[in-house]
Amino acid sequence: MKTSLGPKPIVFPMPAFLVATYDENGRPNVMTAAWGGIASSDPPCVSVSVRPSRWTHGAILKNKAFSVNCPSSALAVAVDYVGLVSGRDFDKFKIAGLTAVRSDLVEAPYVAECPVTLECALRSQVDLGAHTMFVGQIVDVKADTRTISLSAEPDPVAIDPLIFASGAYHQLGQALGRAFSIGLSLKKNEPQQDRT
Amino acid sequence: MKTSLGPKPIVFPMPAFLVATYDENGRPNVMTAAWGGIASSDPPCVSVSVRPSRWTHGAILKNKAFSVNCPSSALAVAVDYVGLVSGRDFDKFKIAGLTAVRSDLVEAPYVAECPVTLECALRSQVDLGAHTMFVGQIVDVKADTRTISLSAEPDPVAIDPLIFASGAYHQLGQALGRAFSIGLSLKKNEPQQDRT
Repeated sequence: MKTSLGPKPIVFPMPAFLVATYDENGRPNVMTAAWGGIASSDPPCVSVSVRPSRWTHGAILKNKAFSVNCPSSALAVAVDYVGLVSGRDFDKFKIAGLTAVRSDLVEAPYVAECPVTLECALRSQVDLGAHTMFVGQIVDVKADTRTISLSAEPDPVAIDPLIFASGAYHQLGQALGRAFSIGLSLKKNEPQQDRT
Repeated sequence: MKTSLGPKPIVFPMPAFLVATYDENGRPNVMTAAWGGIASSDPPCVSVSVRPSRWTHGAILKNKAFSVNCPSSALAVAVDYVGLVSGRDFDKFKIAGLTAVRSDLVEAPYVAECPVTLECALRSQVDLGAHTMFVGQIVDVKADTRTISLSAEPDPVAIDPLIFASGAYHQLGQALGRAFSIGLSLKKNEPQQDRT
């Protein structure tokens, strides 16, 4: 039986992205963003939503660029910290023990400690009330060499991504099977085609 | 050390949403969408990206409505199946053993078996090449009563959400701490304010 919770911004799972920018003074800044995800395959795009009051908001508009960094579970404390305070007031990279690396491709830093980073050029923005949704075109994905499998795919177990759910951080759990594969077992339920 | 993977649509984690609609014949249809996430808090909005060739694409445009359903890990096979075939050809709800419930609020069904469902009214769309990003305003969230904690929050362990990562499905893993809380331990690293 289902109960109504009213209109709320809740899905499962959510990411705990780190969004990194250069601020109006050229200093690297980083914030946490759970509102976002992949937006298109070709060209590859990602969206992140940021409140207009955030220091990051002006930085994205100024540089037309940002990075989306996927932290490992080991970074949970740092990820939570950079969601608590503003880059107006503090050097969050330094306090959280994170390293800003200048992108060669866009005017944004990325976070060295994150196993997967996306360098993004601002493509479009949608004003949605409390948040502006920024859509970035992904110019490059960089991954730690230790997290790349023999088939050149990022290995989710090696990445050990940080996951956000109902106000708590979690690790990734048990693998259940491959996509575009485990569902094939249900094709037996499809009605038979007329083969005459 | 990081290696470049080129521009690719990859983040960690991704959701494995079920997007449900009524098609042009009024029949319920459902597809899998890993491209999406929360887009704003107020009004609460969610985005899902759908290829123009998909049967769901026309249904969203026709009814200006859809539901976003968050499946539990027990639904992995059904979730994968409804991403493999088209509602043009098959009654995917029936073949996958899923139940369509008519929303009282929007012209879309939701998936009874999913522990958390969002009923959405189409708010805006952004054409991004391979995919159209549909932003839906969340009119209501419905959750299984068994997954609601005493504090009226959805409990991620009870929900047991299905997670998508690098082409594989996973369960949620170990909890690591509360948001807006575990990061407070780093405030000791902040420079001292002048208190004179």
